[in-house]
Amino acid sequence: MKIDLFFTAEELRENILTDKTVIVIDVLRASVTIAQALYNGCKDIIPVESAERALDLMQKIGRQFVLLCGERDGQKVEGFDLGNSPFEYTEPVVRDKTLIFATTNGSKAIVKAASGDKVVIGSFVNFKEVAELVLNLNKDLAIVCSGKEGKFSLEDTVCGGMFINKLQEQKKADVNDAAQAAAVLYQKHKDNLLKVLETCDHGKFLSSLGFEKDLAFCSQLNSLPVLPILENGRIIKYTA
Amino acid sequence: MKIDLFFTAEELRENILTDKTVIVIDVLRASVTIAQALYNGCKDIIPVESAERALDLMQKIGRQFVLLCGERDGQKVEGFDLGNSPFEYTEPVVRDKTLIFATTNGSKAIVKAASGDKVVIGSFVNFKEVAELVLNLNKDLAIVCSGKEGKFSLEDTVCGGMFINKLQEQKKADVNDAAQAAAVLYQKHKDNLLKVLETCDHGKFLSSLGFEKDLAFCSQLNSLPVLPILENGRIIKYTA
Repeated sequence: MKIDLFFTAEELRENILTDKTVIVIDVLRASVTIAQALYNGCKDIIPVESAERALDLMQKIGRQFVLLCGERDGQKVEGFDLGNSPFEYTEPVVRDKTLIFATTNGSKAIVKAASGDKVVIGSFVNFKEVAELVLNLNKDLAIVCSGKEGKFSLEDTVCGGMFINKLQEQKKADVNDAAQAAAVLYQKHKDNLLKVLETCDHGKFLSSLGFEKDLAFCSQLNSLPVLPILENGRIIKYTA
Repeated sequence: MKIDLFFTAEELRENILTDKTVIVIDVLRASVTIAQALYNGCKDIIPVESAERALDLMQKIGRQFVLLCGERDGQKVEGFDLGNSPFEYTEPVVRDKTLIFATTNGSKAIVKAASGDKVVIGSFVNFKEVAELVLNLNKDLAIVCSGKEGKFSLEDTVCGGMFINKLQEQKKADVNDAAQAAAVLYQKHKDNLLKVLETCDHGKFLSSLGFEKDLAFCSQLNSLPVLPILENGRIIKYTA
């Protein structure tokens, strides 16, 4: 098994994901918000690259059929229904709804990673489900960290390292430099995931906006047992 | 003191290096080859982004006044005088010469980092000199890893982490996520730098081309006490 990790979706080159399982990670917060929305019964989520693209798509589908969701600079986009805090995605709000989802890093990374064989959205909150699926699929794996505006983010990499550690317990894997580094970073930080989220660049930024509670929520291991998978441009719950 | 590390020069944004000390790192092998050439008495080194640019510049300056140096896919560019192995840059070959230098990652990163206040070229072989200069300059620091074709490389990051560890022993520093990660990776690998070079992606590639000896050369700490600095587009020996 080959495991390649990418610190940002910008690193992806053409055909690099072909025939691979792909995990897209945005720990703060898109991966968690997506898991929460599906867990709370939304119908599907359409990830898009930008707020502008979300508005275009909304006009095609019809305003009454969708929730417009996403953030810019960490805050809800003006005129949108929901931002990017998992606390907004409660069952009464999202049940049976189609969500159009535009965030600065996460939704963009998902769109860029769409060429994978199976593309799943992972983070600490649904770690177990995602790891099990990857093992069952038994294909080469690409872990795509969303990063922060084209740069490395520690929290996504530590989470990627957790997947790599888990998989290497079960399979012999040939890993790239970034995957090797991620495994080391996970080992260093595994005993205090919340602290990683509190001390990383993006966590500090979110705290400065008043989203401290989101950090605790996003650090909870296996708290949202759901498996978000991208199919035909929409994220739905995976069923084998 | 603020320390930001960048895994690749592609991550640099406009004005991000203004008024900062910059260390550009390409452990395998441009940083070492540059140190070796200066140590062995070359006059100066003009880093350029590509072999094409090297040829253009050579025609302007005159073929007889320069050595054309650099690699593509690890091998000497056809028609060039020297490749990118430090063993080629002996005293009889380079003494008093101007070198035009085009490599896939390192020379390109140096060109991209040129807007720093002081831009020095560092690696394990001249670690001590570079660290002392950075401490003496006492400005915010950007460490620019060359990476490998736009992607993370472990060996540059471990070396960057070594600088960060050293500086943090002396100064209180505010570090970005990538710098924090690099410090952890250095701690993990510090007892066997050669092994890092032998097991990283680019080291394995160079070994497959027969450059194993280069890896050992590039892993030797403080073996080339010289301080390469970029001034007006040329790399020269720094004198305070």
